[in-house]
Amino acid sequence: MSGRFITFEGIEGVGKSTQLEVARGYLQQRGIDVAVTREPGGTPLAEKIRALLLDAGHTAMAPDAELLLMFAARAQHLAEKILPTLAAGRWVLCDRFTDATYAYQGGGRGIGAERVAAVEQLVQGALRPDATILLDAPPQVGLARARARGAGADRFESEQLRFFERVRDAYLQRATAHAGRFTVIDATAELAEVSRQVTGVLDRLLTEQ
Amino acid sequence: MSGRFITFEGIEGVGKSTQLEVARGYLQQRGIDVAVTREPGGTPLAEKIRALLLDAGHTAMAPDAELLLMFAARAQHLAEKILPTLAAGRWVLCDRFTDATYAYQGGGRGIGAERVAAVEQLVQGALRPDATILLDAPPQVGLARARARGAGADRFESEQLRFFERVRDAYLQRATAHAGRFTVIDATAELAEVSRQVTGVLDRLLTEQ
Repeated sequence: MSGRFITFEGIEGVGKSTQLEVARGYLQQRGIDVAVTREPGGTPLAEKIRALLLDAGHTAMAPDAELLLMFAARAQHLAEKILPTLAAGRWVLCDRFTDATYAYQGGGRGIGAERVAAVEQLVQGALRPDATILLDAPPQVGLARARARGAGADRFESEQLRFFERVRDAYLQRATAHAGRFTVIDATAELAEVSRQVTGVLDRLLTEQ
Repeated sequence: MSGRFITFEGIEGVGKSTQLEVARGYLQQRGIDVAVTREPGGTPLAEKIRALLLDAGHTAMAPDAELLLMFAARAQHLAEKILPTLAAGRWVLCDRFTDATYAYQGGGRGIGAERVAAVEQLVQGALRPDATILLDAPPQVGLARARARGAGADRFESEQLRFFERVRDAYLQRATAHAGRFTVIDATAELAEVSRQVTGVLDRLLTEQ
């Protein structure tokens, strides 16, 4: 049978990478063949598109250009990696997917959900993740953690706090509107508690197998 | 008043660059302030997207990724260059625009006109060129000329003859469906005759001023 498609969402610094590794290990221990990937990116062409999107030198990127670059990378990622991997029966854990486009471009940039939905429909048809884990934290907390990692800020990380508040709000609206697919986890909780909730989502998916 | 937006279309080797220069000189002699640009490209970011699109190393580019990269470059080109230039009262002569997306991605790649139209509507709203000059020639003629220029073939130029026949067919269908905007010129005619027809289109636009 086809694998399951699980996406991890949230702003910078909420611990997505850590929880992706927790999930990978938990599934592998249960004999599941897992592929971990990320967006934008995940294939050589899509990673080149990611580099254009994150380049802090592109200070005048048009919002529609940003939206379409995100979905161009996604179309390539789906065709070349996600869909073949699921078809082969492997599970896919993806660091951000289309909910991030609703949050960052739709909410953060103010493009609005309708324009995002139009391109989503074109590129994905009816395809949606089987489960989406939203690691939620106030932007102040996430950004402080992300900046403590010390690398230079990319084009998104250079945005102001108000931008990330819009992103978080849009994420939470998505979670409410698609409550059956989303699990919202308080990312300011103890790491062990966050991991426990993540593996709880995986247990439900494993039971449904 | 706003400037006029004129696009030059056609497959490789039909003489677009030459006729763009003819048109530029003709308009400048009549005191028109002209900007010449091209697609995909025309701004620093859009030229980087062009480089991704033309890179012959991307042998497995998904058709939707190609379509969305084209329109991402176009969204940037419109926002950063075409629209401000027209608003300043200058004329814009553009080497390929959205009709090329209908021809190459819609026809050549087989994506179909409906998917192209969906993204066109999102990015352009009601914006269309004031006039489109289609330089038409059998693919054998155009490709022989393009290859005689001797540079290495890019990802599009590496396609087979049948691909360019589909592109040409789609161009001619566009010209029929939008006959008021299009002028189809036989690009196998003498250069002076092709130029005479191009300047004829410009004369009509100048009269309408």
